[in-house]
Amino acid sequence: MLIRQLFDAQTFTYTYLVAAAYGKEAILVDPVDSKIEQYLKLIKELDLKLKYVFDTHVHADHITAAGKLREMTGCTTILGAETGAPCASKTITDKEKITIEDIEFTALKTPGHTQDSYCLYTKGVLFTGDTLFIRGTGRTDFQAGNPEQQYDSIVNKLFTLPEDTIIYPGHDYNGNTTSTIYEEKNFNPRLAGKSIEEFKEIMNNLNLPNPKLMDIAVPANLKCGLI
Amino acid sequence: MLIRQLFDAQTFTYTYLVAAAYGKEAILVDPVDSKIEQYLKLIKELDLKLKYVFDTHVHADHITAAGKLREMTGCTTILGAETGAPCASKTITDKEKITIEDIEFTALKTPGHTQDSYCLYTKGVLFTGDTLFIRGTGRTDFQAGNPEQQYDSIVNKLFTLPEDTIIYPGHDYNGNTTSTIYEEKNFNPRLAGKSIEEFKEIMNNLNLPNPKLMDIAVPANLKCGLI
Repeated sequence: MLIRQLFDAQTFTYTYLVAAAYGKEAILVDPVDSKIEQYLKLIKELDLKLKYVFDTHVHADHITAAGKLREMTGCTTILGAETGAPCASKTITDKEKITIEDIEFTALKTPGHTQDSYCLYTKGVLFTGDTLFIRGTGRTDFQAGNPEQQYDSIVNKLFTLPEDTIIYPGHDYNGNTTSTIYEEKNFNPRLAGKSIEEFKEIMNNLNLPNPKLMDIAVPANLKCGLI
Repeated sequence: MLIRQLFDAQTFTYTYLVAAAYGKEAILVDPVDSKIEQYLKLIKELDLKLKYVFDTHVHADHITAAGKLREMTGCTTILGAETGAPCASKTITDKEKITIEDIEFTALKTPGHTQDSYCLYTKGVLFTGDTLFIRGTGRTDFQAGNPEQQYDSIVNKLFTLPEDTIIYPGHDYNGNTTSTIYEEKNFNPRLAGKSIEEFKEIMNNLNLPNPKLMDIAVPANLKCGLI
């Protein structure tokens, strides 16, 4: 499987371009509006056909490239059914399959960071969006975020996947690129050995400022970035 | 093979922690002084034994963690024989083998960015240091850098490796993490379809400012970062 992890240094966002191989259909996970030219150049070089753009949720920190990429390439844009964004070409629900040639992904509904958060799983690989980070998690204090739901999504859903599954997060602020289910189960300081009550206590006391772009990004992303 | 690509956002440096699996011997490639605690934490979590620290060359943009890691862990630090840094535990020459348990790396002498530049190769994977970047190359205008040597190192040495070899560069300034020999052969704007004369012309006209830390980093790295 061809996976290209692409980093946006402005928002510390990871975007993923995934295909079976050069010359095949591709999916882009969580693309950033300001990077469209870079994605299109890479897609052309690798001779890929962009079939899907998948946003793991309506982002508050960056504007999605989904809508513009659809206009430019004819790809299908996907968001969770809970998003309430009529701009999406297609909405998905829990355990729905997304297929690019011989790769079958399963969309896993993982509310908590937002009510519309999904992860994308295929054997060996999990794109965790803002649900699970490397030694951290997405925040739960806006967009109907809920720490109890997030704990349930991570512990009772993601942590039941094979331990050697490689985790590709939606952000990293500390210079990490990948992890595994085993590592997060055992070393994630918010989760390892923590009860749901302890997790709730941590999440409700992060006292983070709102993302700089939040007031622009959320409404823009409800229009798939077409503002 | 376990590979952890770690990013230093201050200097856009990639460091690599490599081992056969959890619980085994490990090598760190191009570690950054300010990140030592993060490396040691990760090495402990993954239950690795740090056998080697390998610097691909004497860096001008960041201070190596090699010397301090040797003091703290007892690891062996490695530099190319051309470096002239007596602080290294071990110096290597072209095609010398470096082994961690069942992984055998070959050190490839690739002068050009600096006179002491080496890449590290094992089947399927190439750590390119500052010799070859994703759609770019390291500069050749100081530390006895030489564009003709760099062209020869890349085209006649690295580009003869299998085309599906994954490239892990020493830096990236554009949000890329990995590439392949095939991609750089075909899409690197400084190299694809370019003669040695054209490459020289490009490299001699980059007009880049010196790295901010150069006057501190080079002398510090000649002492393996122990200043």
